Amino acid sequence: MTTGVRRRMGVEERRQQLIGVALELFSNRSPDDVSIDEIAAAAGISRPLVYHYFPGKLSLYEAALQRAADDLAERFMEPHEGPLGARLLRVTGRFLGFVDEHGPGFSALMRGGPAVGSSSSPTTNALIDSVRQAAYEQILAHLGVTDPPARLDLVVRSWVSLAESTALIWLDGRRIPRAELERQLVHDFAALAAVSAAYDDEMARLLGTVLADEPADGPFADLLARLAALAPRAALPS
Amino acid sequence: MTTGVRRRMGVEERRQQLIGVALELFSNRSPDDVSIDEIAAAAGISRPLVYHYFPGKLSLYEAALQRAADDLAERFMEPHEGPLGARLLRVTGRFLGFVDEHGPGFSALMRGGPAVGSSSSPTTNALIDSVRQAAYEQILAHLGVTDPPARLDLVVRSWVSLAESTALIWLDGRRIPRAELERQLVHDFAALAAVSAAYDDEMARLLGTVLADEPADGPFADLLARLAALAPRAALPS
Repeated sequence: MTTGVRRRMGVEERRQQLIGVALELFSNRSPDDVSIDEIAAAAGISRPLVYHYFPGKLSLYEAALQRAADDLAERFMEPHEGPLGARLLRVTGRFLGFVDEHGPGFSALMRGGPAVGSSSSPTTNALIDSVRQAAYEQILAHLGVTDPPARLDLVVRSWVSLAESTALIWLDGRRIPRAELERQLVHDFAALAAVSAAYDDEMARLLGTVLADEPADGPFADLLARLAALAPRAALPS
Repeated sequence: MTTGVRRRMGVEERRQQLIGVALELFSNRSPDDVSIDEIAAAAGISRPLVYHYFPGKLSLYEAALQRAADDLAERFMEPHEGPLGARLLRVTGRFLGFVDEHGPGFSALMRGGPAVGSSSSPTTNALIDSVRQAAYEQILAHLGVTDPPARLDLVVRSWVSLAESTALIWLDGRRIPRAELERQLVHDFAALAAVSAAYDDEMARLLGTVLADEPADGPFADLLARLAALAPRAALPS
């Protein structure tokens, strides 16, 4: 038993605790609606003590954002084993889990940033860009490509952006089951790559290599089979 | 001959001239790098006179942005005639023409906004959202849908966002011919719709209706034929 004696936290420990409390609050409501008083109360310390660790709400917000970005970058990590479609599905699932947990804060940030400090500050913009870049690099690494041609670069970057906007649109009402959204995003990647491959030999070869390793019960093969089933309904040139 | 006598411009005419000059400058360089002095010089008037019409750089920037948004919304207008694929191709072409003309300004605005005033101000954010909404409503109108189901809503909104980010990525180096990008974006729309249709009967019916009216030489049929040609290279479940 500690008999009510409160252990004194070290400086770094207190900072980390405050960041955790702030991230929780900034995630679940629009960051503009969260006050320093509230953060102090949730952390069980006084308002002046919060200012002792962070000069203002903006610096605390940026620290919380940094932790969220680190968390997200970690969720992108996936062993280079097994079919690509299944790997992308797992990572996409973890990304949507993150979005689900941090909904209101994620929306506020991505929709031009909350008005905390100077909204989309160079710091928050750089942080968002670093997460996009991490996602981009992970995908290229899984594809085994180090120097992507322009069309692959576009497919990967535009899909990362699509995943972001799809998540944002989904958060506004959550009218589609999350599991369906995960699968759909993976298919969207395959579809964007296929469109690119339809006009470019280099992309066609790359897509062929990827698809050759996909199992018949994987998400990519599943999509192709479903699209093939759709096709007869369309006016295909005979 | 006017023998050098300069006609006095009316207030509104002068405002419109200044907006035009500012839009030209804000479009072709990062807006942060454009000074009021430069705008005054380009308009052939004094710096104090610029301030007479616009209280500061931010208000002039917002007026220029409003004109650009009006221009863009006008480019979205397309007669409800002929196959949908060809209509979307024409509108996408005009959108990319706009992006091409306003490259640096478009990039600065969409990448979290330039630091002019308070970057992504509520005004600029609202303007960007109104353009997205206009694009969304135009597409639904062409599809003849007034009350879109959740999945169609997602496909249309996420494609609008994809068109935006694809344009932004393209502007960074312009490594792909613009005409190819136009066609690819139209195909991306069909691909995202097809992915959605692969898992949802309502979307499948809608896509079927659209494709039934597409000519064999239209962009949608073209894509389907090319994808069908790609398929044998992939490990389709037999």
